[in-house]
Amino acid sequence: MRNKVCKFIFLFFILASAVNAGEALPSWNDGPAKQSIITFVEEVTDTGSDSYVKPEERIAVFDNDGTLWAEQPIYVQLAFAIDRVKALAPEHPEWKTQQPFKAVLENDREALAESGYEGLTELIMTTHAQMTRAEFEEIVTNWLATARHPQFKRPYTELVYKPMLELLVYLRENGFKTYIVSGGGMEFMRPWTEQVYGIPPEQVVGSRIKNKYDIREGKPVLVRLPEVEFIDDKEGKPVGINTHIGRRPIAAFGNSDGDLQMLQWTQAGDGPSFMLIVHHTDAKREYAYDRESHIGRLDKALDQAQKQGWTVVNMKKDWKTIFPEEK
Amino acid sequence: MRNKVCKFIFLFFILASAVNAGEALPSWNDGPAKQSIITFVEEVTDTGSDSYVKPEERIAVFDNDGTLWAEQPIYVQLAFAIDRVKALAPEHPEWKTQQPFKAVLENDREALAESGYEGLTELIMTTHAQMTRAEFEEIVTNWLATARHPQFKRPYTELVYKPMLELLVYLRENGFKTYIVSGGGMEFMRPWTEQVYGIPPEQVVGSRIKNKYDIREGKPVLVRLPEVEFIDDKEGKPVGINTHIGRRPIAAFGNSDGDLQMLQWTQAGDGPSFMLIVHHTDAKREYAYDRESHIGRLDKALDQAQKQGWTVVNMKKDWKTIFPEEK
Repeated sequence: MRNKVCKFIFLFFILASAVNAGEALPSWNDGPAKQSIITFVEEVTDTGSDSYVKPEERIAVFDNDGTLWAEQPIYVQLAFAIDRVKALAPEHPEWKTQQPFKAVLENDREALAESGYEGLTELIMTTHAQMTRAEFEEIVTNWLATARHPQFKRPYTELVYKPMLELLVYLRENGFKTYIVSGGGMEFMRPWTEQVYGIPPEQVVGSRIKNKYDIREGKPVLVRLPEVEFIDDKEGKPVGINTHIGRRPIAAFGNSDGDLQMLQWTQAGDGPSFMLIVHHTDAKREYAYDRESHIGRLDKALDQAQKQGWTVVNMKKDWKTIFPEEK
Repeated sequence: MRNKVCKFIFLFFILASAVNAGEALPSWNDGPAKQSIITFVEEVTDTGSDSYVKPEERIAVFDNDGTLWAEQPIYVQLAFAIDRVKALAPEHPEWKTQQPFKAVLENDREALAESGYEGLTELIMTTHAQMTRAEFEEIVTNWLATARHPQFKRPYTELVYKPMLELLVYLRENGFKTYIVSGGGMEFMRPWTEQVYGIPPEQVVGSRIKNKYDIREGKPVLVRLPEVEFIDDKEGKPVGINTHIGRRPIAAFGNSDGDLQMLQWTQAGDGPSFMLIVHHTDAKREYAYDRESHIGRLDKALDQAQKQGWTVVNMKKDWKTIFPEEK
């Protein structure tokens, strides 16, 4: 009985994997980018290959902004903070004359940019802290349900890259554990990543503010404090990976200089590794930007990609479609 | 073909689960503690039950010291720090006159205790930091391979509780994801938890020091800085759980007041929950200690366990064996 079952299970997986190989990455045009992904995955999953990697070590890390979803014309989380300031403004008449809030309320991008890192931090702390974790989750969820992208007029969670969604599924079907490793706020992503990307909250690494355990009305709560605990960007990404995963990834996917160290860290592992950069080259279907962009600047990492032979996705050429169909 | 395979797979799992139910927790004596575990697991895995919990939400968190392995007469990590000071002493002649090192070198427990939290922190920083993550991992691994428990004369990784190992397996077989949430150092545990407990590094939550990404001899490294980043104890445990898991556990296992908030946080979830305290009552086979102990004090959490109806394991009565057989 056992043997028969095993035989059937074995056959089933053989069939299933044959089907997958044929259907993998349908939104990717045939070319070196798609081929490099498939070659890597086939090598590390082939028990007969020198490049074979045990399933538990098949860790793949993905940047979020600009790698899995659109980051132009401003980061989604900044759009959230701006909307939140506007929603809270009636309770804060002092914001009419106080930067960076004045700039936000007057849609004055120049003044907002001038407020710099400190201004941005104050904006984030005011809109992201001094509430419980559960309250923040509800605010994010409600905002995402109604907010629309200024150009595409679609919910932000629909402005995810269809080829990358297929890539996430393809990797998971091949025994990879997929993680987000983003400069964005960890708790800003967790409410929706499982539904949108199939990535559960425990596999979301991001920037964090401090949390404090407290008892309120007899119930334990986690309160979000207005204090940065960790910035998961640039040199922070390998640190965040180590804190949350404790293993070195074998595959890393990014799109900007903020991802450079994550890709270098991945490449420096002992075994096989795969590094990929999404290059935004499609001004018509999405955006075209790289070395000069203030958001998602891709300069040093593009040089390194060329030098190290990392895969560079040319969105215009390599992707049949950018976003999933409208719901 | 597909239908036949599905039927066999279905039958296979039915048979497998029937086998598991009969064999579950063999080192546990029949009684209310064992029964409470089995009842909870059967309820949350029964799709027909009001208490059913989806597999992705079956998060179980385990304290380590005193819950999964022995913590007497001193925490294993402190034994490591002491041995490490002794190993490094030849390079540090100044330690002969400098506390807390002098106390360690002279085996003067009283003076060591007098050095207090600050002394302990200095000891940990000196022995745990200023090296790369990879170097630390190697030091821990080598130490564990040769160090022996002062009383049992066995490797520390063999002084894990057999009934708890069975419990970890039983939970995982029932779709739970098992985590360690310990006050001990995260990187002190990760080198061996997968082998000893079947818990991979990404499911180990613990106290942390800061890490810094650096390039050394052209290679990226993570350097351990002598600065505490997070203490995963008491009020810290729910915070650590949130940072690493992002979901509330439905089952929590501890043995001391350091676990109280973790158990309260688990209990305060919306759905079913299970809280268990390991009570060290077996002076003959292990140790007996609770309200007055300096290590693993169990006082407030024992009161709460009784008040809230949490399961309290009486080691002497509930466990057939304490440790696995010698290898």
